[in-house]
Amino acid sequence: MESPLFLAGFERIKGFERAMAPEQMIEELKNLVDEGKVRVDEDSLQTFGKDWTKIHEPKPVAIVFPKSTEQVQSIVKFANKHNIGLVPSGGRTGLSAGAVATNGEIVVSFDYMNQILDFSPSDRTVKCQSGVITEQLQDYAEQQGLYYPVDFASAGSSQLGGNLSTNAGGIKVIRYGMSRDWVSGLKVVTGNGDILELNKDLEKNNTGYDIRHLFIGAEGTLGFITEATMKLTRQPTNLTVLVLGLSDLTNTMDVLQTFQQQIDLTAYEFFSHQAMGHVLAHGDVQAPFEGEAPYYALLEFEATSDAVMDDAMALFEKCVEEGWVVDGVISQSETQAQNLWRLREGISESIAPHTPYKNDISVVVSKVPQFLQEIDAVVTEHYPDFEIIWFGHIGDGNLHLNILKPADLAKEEFFEKCLQVNKWVFEIVEKYNGSVSAEHGVGLTKKDYLGYTRSAIEIEYMKGIKRVFDPNNIMNPGKVIDL
Amino acid sequence: MESPLFLAGFERIKGFERAMAPEQMIEELKNLVDEGKVRVDEDSLQTFGKDWTKIHEPKPVAIVFPKSTEQVQSIVKFANKHNIGLVPSGGRTGLSAGAVATNGEIVVSFDYMNQILDFSPSDRTVKCQSGVITEQLQDYAEQQGLYYPVDFASAGSSQLGGNLSTNAGGIKVIRYGMSRDWVSGLKVVTGNGDILELNKDLEKNNTGYDIRHLFIGAEGTLGFITEATMKLTRQPTNLTVLVLGLSDLTNTMDVLQTFQQQIDLTAYEFFSHQAMGHVLAHGDVQAPFEGEAPYYALLEFEATSDAVMDDAMALFEKCVEEGWVVDGVISQSETQAQNLWRLREGISESIAPHTPYKNDISVVVSKVPQFLQEIDAVVTEHYPDFEIIWFGHIGDGNLHLNILKPADLAKEEFFEKCLQVNKWVFEIVEKYNGSVSAEHGVGLTKKDYLGYTRSAIEIEYMKGIKRVFDPNNIMNPGKVIDL
Repeated sequence: MESPLFLAGFERIKGFERAMAPEQMIEELKNLVDEGKVRVDEDSLQTFGKDWTKIHEPKPVAIVFPKSTEQVQSIVKFANKHNIGLVPSGGRTGLSAGAVATNGEIVVSFDYMNQILDFSPSDRTVKCQSGVITEQLQDYAEQQGLYYPVDFASAGSSQLGGNLSTNAGGIKVIRYGMSRDWVSGLKVVTGNGDILELNKDLEKNNTGYDIRHLFIGAEGTLGFITEATMKLTRQPTNLTVLVLGLSDLTNTMDVLQTFQQQIDLTAYEFFSHQAMGHVLAHGDVQAPFEGEAPYYALLEFEATSDAVMDDAMALFEKCVEEGWVVDGVISQSETQAQNLWRLREGISESIAPHTPYKNDISVVVSKVPQFLQEIDAVVTEHYPDFEIIWFGHIGDGNLHLNILKPADLAKEEFFEKCLQVNKWVFEIVEKYNGSVSAEHGVGLTKKDYLGYTRSAIEIEYMKGIKRVFDPNNIMNPGKVIDL
Repeated sequence: MESPLFLAGFERIKGFERAMAPEQMIEELKNLVDEGKVRVDEDSLQTFGKDWTKIHEPKPVAIVFPKSTEQVQSIVKFANKHNIGLVPSGGRTGLSAGAVATNGEIVVSFDYMNQILDFSPSDRTVKCQSGVITEQLQDYAEQQGLYYPVDFASAGSSQLGGNLSTNAGGIKVIRYGMSRDWVSGLKVVTGNGDILELNKDLEKNNTGYDIRHLFIGAEGTLGFITEATMKLTRQPTNLTVLVLGLSDLTNTMDVLQTFQQQIDLTAYEFFSHQAMGHVLAHGDVQAPFEGEAPYYALLEFEATSDAVMDDAMALFEKCVEEGWVVDGVISQSETQAQNLWRLREGISESIAPHTPYKNDISVVVSKVPQFLQEIDAVVTEHYPDFEIIWFGHIGDGNLHLNILKPADLAKEEFFEKCLQVNKWVFEIVEKYNGSVSAEHGVGLTKKDYLGYTRSAIEIEYMKGIKRVFDPNNIMNPGKVIDL
């Protein structure tokens, strides 16, 4: 059967020039960007060749720092010509090895594409180059009296292009959605070297396939995002935090449902007693109340008026009467709210010394308690000496599973056992129709496990899509799927 | 160059059987669905062969009514085997001829796939077959104490599958987004006859390309949506409506921006003095206030407390002081709110007797005034006897342009002149980087104008995607793009 796709339309690169020596190739690469914007020193190769996942050994041939979409385009055309892979590099905070170069690729760093290009107050949109850092966007929004609501621990270094390529979520998803939901336009360079301007910053535009949404979450495997127009919203008012002690895991769902009927929660987070224990032991954070509970929920909402505060108190009392909640505390000031947040946000740092195994998984909200208990049971049965730390964005069905290395167990042995844990966890994820990667993406780390969430035929369609945008498999090759 | 896509993975149909007589084919089709669920009588062919666009002559060979995803799958496999096109048919309320069968296709009606399959209170999701009617979903949500917020004039007949295939918007987009934003899972049958379960109803799932978003807005050209899991939200509280008279078109933007800084608007609609004139002349609706203004804005918000109402009044006063607003009225009850809405919602019906030319276009919000004035100017210059009626979802940059046929002008002549108007309008749309179809989709009506919004190379990529999912061009052939 003929394939009309490959006959029509695209400017196609015929054959590869494979013969060129690396030195000569790098000289040619230097012509495509500003002076000094190609680096081959070992320090740069090591630094820009990896993200926060540390298990892969970086082996890029060069790091290139474009300053414009057109420079990115020439790099992509160059890579097609020389049949060399390109790895996109943003803030390098990824946790799935989506931005590691282990195989002689050229790393394309967006560090010098960090300009905010335009702001429109009526549209409440801001056009950014993809190297803009999340916090830079948040601060800029605040200066305009507005708010960029996507927020997470790595906001100080993660870049917008990376956030969009992994569709980053974070702590406010229950109210504000994922990064995806804040994109009104994208400029991308496809694997064919075409520049596409997707959706033109429009709020409403129903003119065929929404290619914008295809690039969001694609981890740079279809092309690279070079600019994004992001929506902003009004600043939240009087954010107020409730921390509740829950008598039982299933009560987290009852409490969520009860509050959601009346109040627009901006966060619904969860952590176990063990998790809080580490935070309290680690620093100068205070317990929320005297009593203890096996699980805790952190709720945040805008107390826009006394009426909302009254509602919240009435709902809290209902939860106590029902026996779902054993104790609780509510913030009376911004400082108190921030302190309560530290109970949740301090967890990762407090357990870091224990070399934790980490996994980022999700199921539909209603299945969280059963799902969590099943994983708990299987891990405890086989490895009773493993300490399991649960926390996460339970209002979105997103759990962060952390298992601490017993002090007397060698790292290598622990990691080996964790591979076995992976298998159990992902089998349970599959059984519950969940996701092997709720918000960290697939990259290299989850690639072999993709089949637990996406069907074989879905993965074939993903490959078909990849071939349309990147037929030579130049863009972040080997990440997410293999061709 | 070889095309690995067409070698791998898919169950491929080798060659077509074209020789079969239509009667024999229809007999075979009958075996695929329940008894009596294939119709070939002229009435059915006429009724199910078209949507609300009346200009195309329906010519389907048969109408088939599947009851399950599996039946849809067998119909798609059958269509591939016989190389016959399939046209999806929902509530047939489309305005872009996305669901007309003019070329001997089989129409696949979803009228008998109208079951609500599941509801989860903790997840606040409801799983529907794609033939569920919008209002049926809205009512069901209300019975559960929840809310499905996507709403528009045709909600009483439009079906969910059609809404999703055109990514329908409507009157609450400024707060609640488009249909797209309420989909947590889709079941589809691709043009290859594969069943895909997309996103598994998860809130967070970053595992590769989001094929769900590709099917939303694809107008059935990649495959047919058979089931959708839709999110619900809490019911709004005390919806309150403000109608403001605006001294000038550009003030609509100032007023919008002023209110949005403090209040979450659930609607920001707009209509001209002429538009309101038709509504007032047409029925028993009252003018909102004594004075007149060239343009009107309708704002809706949740008056959750007295504090919000005080805020709204203060903002209104600010707008008056600034000279943006000449007069205004605020609803004090649900009935008053509904009556004010009639000023906006009655427009389409009131101008219907004037055989209006209709166009559904959008630009970024900030460009609306300039854009509108430019179109006004060019139409008035060439056709001074044409009455132009503007209204729309101005908070989303979405305008409905209506031009009334002068009473003494023959229909044919009017339609001919409107084709010329189309060209001017779309050239201005292109100049302003807007969309030729904000929410009605492309179908047949806008296909020839797609290039005013999507670049030639983007359209090539769309064709590439189409070939991955529907290589034999079976699914709604000729709509949106030609292969």
